[in-house]
Formats: sequence, C-alpha cells, structure tokens
Amino acid sequence: MTRVLYDLCGIDEGLRFSPYCWRVRLALAHKGLEVQTRPWRFNDTEALAFADHYQVPVLVDGEEVVTDSYEILRYLDRTYPEAPLLGEGLAEARGRFFKHYAERVMAPAMLRTIVMDLLNAIHPDDRAYFRETREKRLGRTLEEFHSPAKGLAQLDHALAPLRAQLADGDFLDGDAPAGADYLVFGNFMWARCVSSADLVSNADPVYGWLERMLDLHDGLGRNALRVTDIEGAYR
Amino acid sequence: MTRVLYDLCGIDEGLRFSPYCWRVRLALAHKGLEVQTRPWRFNDTEALAFADHYQVPVLVDGEEVVTDSYEILRYLDRTYPEAPLLGEGLAEARGRFFKHYAERVMAPAMLRTIVMDLLNAIHPDDRAYFRETREKRLGRTLEEFHSPAKGLAQLDHALAPLRAQLADGDFLDGDAPAGADYLVFGNFMWARCVSSADLVSNADPVYGWLERMLDLHDGLGRNALRVTDIEGAYR
Repeated sequence: MTRVLYDLCGIDEGLRFSPYCWRVRLALAHKGLEVQTRPWRFNDTEALAFADHYQVPVLVDGEEVVTDSYEILRYLDRTYPEAPLLGEGLAEARGRFFKHYAERVMAPAMLRTIVMDLLNAIHPDDRAYFRETREKRLGRTLEEFHSPAKGLAQLDHALAPLRAQLADGDFLDGDAPAGADYLVFGNFMWARCVSSADLVSNADPVYGWLERMLDLHDGLGRNALRVTDIEGAYR
Repeated sequence: MTRVLYDLCGIDEGLRFSPYCWRVRLALAHKGLEVQTRPWRFNDTEALAFADHYQVPVLVDGEEVVTDSYEILRYLDRTYPEAPLLGEGLAEARGRFFKHYAERVMAPAMLRTIVMDLLNAIHPDDRAYFRETREKRLGRTLEEFHSPAKGLAQLDHALAPLRAQLADGDFLDGDAPAGADYLVFGNFMWARCVSSADLVSNADPVYGWLERMLDLHDGLGRNALRVTDIEGAYR
C-alpha cells in the first residue's frame, strides 16, 4: 500500500513550507509510518478533486482520504493507536488549544515578519492567488501588513507561555514530543523554509526546544530544503 | 476531619479575589469536597508559618499541607482520583499550559485594566505591601501601568484562542468543565470580585462560557461577594 500526502510546494518542487503539512509529516514520522509526499501548488485544484477538497494537506491512506491537519492527526490516532499524538478525552480537548494558539496567536505574528519572504518562496504562477486571498483576509496589501519589527515584538509576547511550559519539561507535551509539539512546531518549519529571519534568540528556552524538534525523526525538520539552499532564490 | 483553605480577603473578610484561591475553590467543588475557607491577608505572614510558606492558597487536608494552586490541583487528583482535574500524561502536560497562558498572557492584560480597582479592594493595611511588590515587578507605578484601553485591547487579542476553543465545545476541556477551565476562569473571578469592568462583550463566545462557569457548583462563582456589593467600598 502506498500512503500519499499532498504537500504544498513553492518555487522548487522540493520546497515544502506549509505549516499544516509539516504537522502531518511529523505526525506520520512520530507513528513510524512511511509516506510518499506529492508536491502540490495552490493552483492545482483539479489534483484534489478526488478528495472533494481544495487545499492541502490531503492524506490518502489505502482506501481512506483524510483532509485538514488536525483531523488527520485524529485519524492517525484512531487508526494507529500506538504512540498517541492527541490522545483522548482531556488530552485531546487540550491538544486542540495548541492548534488554535499556533494559528491565532503565533501565525499572525510570524506572518507579519516573513510575509514578503513567503511571497518570494511561492511559485510565480501561485503568487497572484496568494496575494489576492491574503490581502482580502488581512484587509490591506502584503506590503502594508509587512513589519518585522512589529511581528517580532508580537511573537516575543506570544511565546511567553511556551517559555514557561518549556521550563517544566523538554517538550510541550512533557518529556517526549507529541501532538502539541507538532501543532506548534509546524509554524516554525513554515518560517524556516521560506525565510532566514531569526525568530527566536538563542538565549530563549524556546530556541533549545526548536533545536530538539529539528533533530527528531532523523532530522526530518533540519534536513528540509530551505529557500536559502536554492541558488538565486532568496532575495 | 476539617479541610481548611487559607484564602486571600480584601477590605471585607468576605471579599475573596485571589485567582489562585479561586482555582482551588472550584477544584474542590468539582471533586465534591467540602472546605472551610479561612480569610487571610498579605500581612498575615505568621498565620502561614506552619506551612513554611508565605502566600495563599494553602490547603490543609487532614495531615496534609499543600501550597501552590497548581500543586493543590495535582494533589487533589492523586488523593481523590474521581472526576480528574488535570489528569495524567499528555492531559496533565497540556493542562499546565493553561496555567501559563492564564498567568502570562491573560493576567497582565487584565491587571492593566483593573489594577486601580484591585488596589481599592485590598485591605488598607495591605495596600503599601501590594503597591511596593507590584511596582517593583512592573518597573513603574501602578498609576503609570493602569490603562484600561491598552489592557482591554491586549485582552481581546489574548482571548482569540479561547474563542476558537469554545467554538468546538461548551468548555475548554470539552463538553464538561475540568482543570483547564478552572485555571483560566480563576482570573475572571479575580477581576469580577474587585471591579465592575466589562472585560468581555456579550457577543463574544467567551461570554457564554463565563456565564456557564459562574453557574457551576450551585453558582459558587456567581454568588461570590463583589466589591460592588459592599456599601461605599467601590470608588
């Protein structure tokens, strides 16, 4: 059986930067499950028609087609119960908060910092779509929204509870990484793949956690292609 | 056996506003455990000497003396395992994040809004201690820190992940309240007891959750004495 993940790519097929797809790639590695990733771009709407869906990640696992990163993590826990990602009951309910925290608090601060780098990393054919959808959502142009100074200050503030959590253990989920770690770390992979911006100072406890996360699963995160690795791509 | 909780009080012995003590009072009610609260003020250092501790909450449960609100919740789970508050493993690790989120993200925004009301609710003999310790921590005078406009904007931003979480279920912990709800709600009880400030608009999903939390355990939160109930106390 081939397990396939449709995974957003940018100017290069190997540049995979979606925070949602990163959650799933790390979750699959956590479960020890092999996967073949298939590069997908914003305009490849037909490629996902079989899933009746319009955005990635989409996981095809044998007969099963699962969309939405959080739902994929839940699906993996149901189908492969060893090494829980989200768990059940209180663990799952609380795990969901990390998703919201990453998407609603961290992501806006990061986007403000890296948005022009992100645009640059997106395939030229996708840039008009990206600009149009994001400017509509933000209510202003990408250039107006772009402010690394504001974004980094916002991010510094947003990281306060992560810092405190990481004073209590090596990972957000305690002594070993699990779903909460992947839900949050996906955003850091997003920024890392498209930008060389230093989001976290090396004196920050979050920095040590990022280093540990990058090393997990044979360096899955650390070995990912970054835009800075592509000749002439980073402007 | 008498179970005793040392509980911060203000200008009136019945005015109990500590967010940390509220966590514990709600947690005890969640477990169906009776408790006798004993009013304590910041200057009553000798009253806690038996616990080798200098701040509340302090819980005396038979032979056991437990300090720190989070540790008390853990103690209650160990000793009375029915109706878990924090749970174990992933649930407990993630539960801890709500403590940090409440203390590091929500509390500063709320304090900025209500700090002068809080000072007013504190017993006159405790005000010098309160001012001195808080001004040292804040690096400026209470008056300089006080800014409801900034605090409410900060709080509005801080509530984003709570809002999203409450779109998925009635409580932060899912269909029924547990530790995460109490850890966060303690801060709202703090503000409610000392101030009449409207922190959350009634169109906000957080508002509905606050109403449900106030009603829990025979209206423990809703029936608590507020400074506005004390004649001549609210200025």
